[in-house]
Amino acid sequence: MSGYALPIQRLIKELSRFPGIGEKTAARLANHILHIPAEDARRLAQTILDVKDKIRLCSVCFNLAEGELCNICADTARNHGLICVVEEPDSLIALETSGGYHGVYHVLHGALSPLDGIGPEQLRIRELLDRIASNTVEEVIVATNPSVPGETTALLISKLLKERNVKVTRIAFGVPMGGDLKYTDRMTLAKCIEFRRGV
Amino acid sequence: MSGYALPIQRLIKELSRFPGIGEKTAARLANHILHIPAEDARRLAQTILDVKDKIRLCSVCFNLAEGELCNICADTARNHGLICVVEEPDSLIALETSGGYHGVYHVLHGALSPLDGIGPEQLRIRELLDRIASNTVEEVIVATNPSVPGETTALLISKLLKERNVKVTRIAFGVPMGGDLKYTDRMTLAKCIEFRRGV
Repeated sequence: MSGYALPIQRLIKELSRFPGIGEKTAARLANHILHIPAEDARRLAQTILDVKDKIRLCSVCFNLAEGELCNICADTARNHGLICVVEEPDSLIALETSGGYHGVYHVLHGALSPLDGIGPEQLRIRELLDRIASNTVEEVIVATNPSVPGETTALLISKLLKERNVKVTRIAFGVPMGGDLKYTDRMTLAKCIEFRRGV
Repeated sequence: MSGYALPIQRLIKELSRFPGIGEKTAARLANHILHIPAEDARRLAQTILDVKDKIRLCSVCFNLAEGELCNICADTARNHGLICVVEEPDSLIALETSGGYHGVYHVLHGALSPLDGIGPEQLRIRELLDRIASNTVEEVIVATNPSVPGETTALLISKLLKERNVKVTRIAFGVPMGGDLKYTDRMTLAKCIEFRRGV
């Protein structure tokens, strides 16, 4: 690093804070910034600031949003009677990319993990129950991850919702498309039998 | 991308302009920016702007510098009678990292490539000759890359400097440390014989 001028050293240091970006990649990115027009660098810096300034949580589903409502909650063409509960905005994006879902979402911002001090109060579970109380919700799809915290959260949510007479479903776990049964782990194989359906 | 709020989409688009950064990595980086404190994001944006505002070329060696002189040219402890000629600032950094060189540099900012319109006038060759005319330079090490443009440039520089009675040397090409002769290409093997020295 010592051969670099100080502003470059500082930029490399900032860039290497990113997950999965080591010092070499950071130097390559810094080098790219050195070579792009000043206008482009200004725009990049501005978009970074904009994300911090303008992004807040959707007042309905707690997805990341620019205004009061996120793109999805503001979309009247979607089925607002179908709520898909996810742990993080990332999961929402992944489901959106699949293009197979036309309902709305509810982002919990985490999953139950008592050892890390994350109980029901730390998640947006109360807000989910409020949505169900005020709206005509037909079905809640629980799409938390197939991990211990995700499964625990799914269990709690399905218990709470069943008390309120809402239909609760869980996303299917099974062999991924393009996968091969002989390379699939035992847990997944057990799940693919459990989630089987009539053809 | 459509599930993201607009400022995030814009940030992902800017980040995916970086070399080797696809849309998925850009989304991961944008996600990181979303989660860091606003203060850190501001510092990152500022370092990007600083690099564009503060970095210029060293007036002596054309390395990237914060002020009039780069760190290396400003260092009186280095041997200013020994000049290592490199194509790009990256090569300089690589040599600096090795820690084995204590002279100064001269950055050409390219290599001869007539088909791309890069002749001697596009490189900092005239400035190199000026440095040699005015200084007490003992030796010039030509460290352009072992490629066609690099070799052509090395040939021209050595011709020009020999006319001016300056000692010119070329960095050695050979089997890299930790390499294995049986996996080394023919060109490199030919070079490792050519560059052999007495033991």
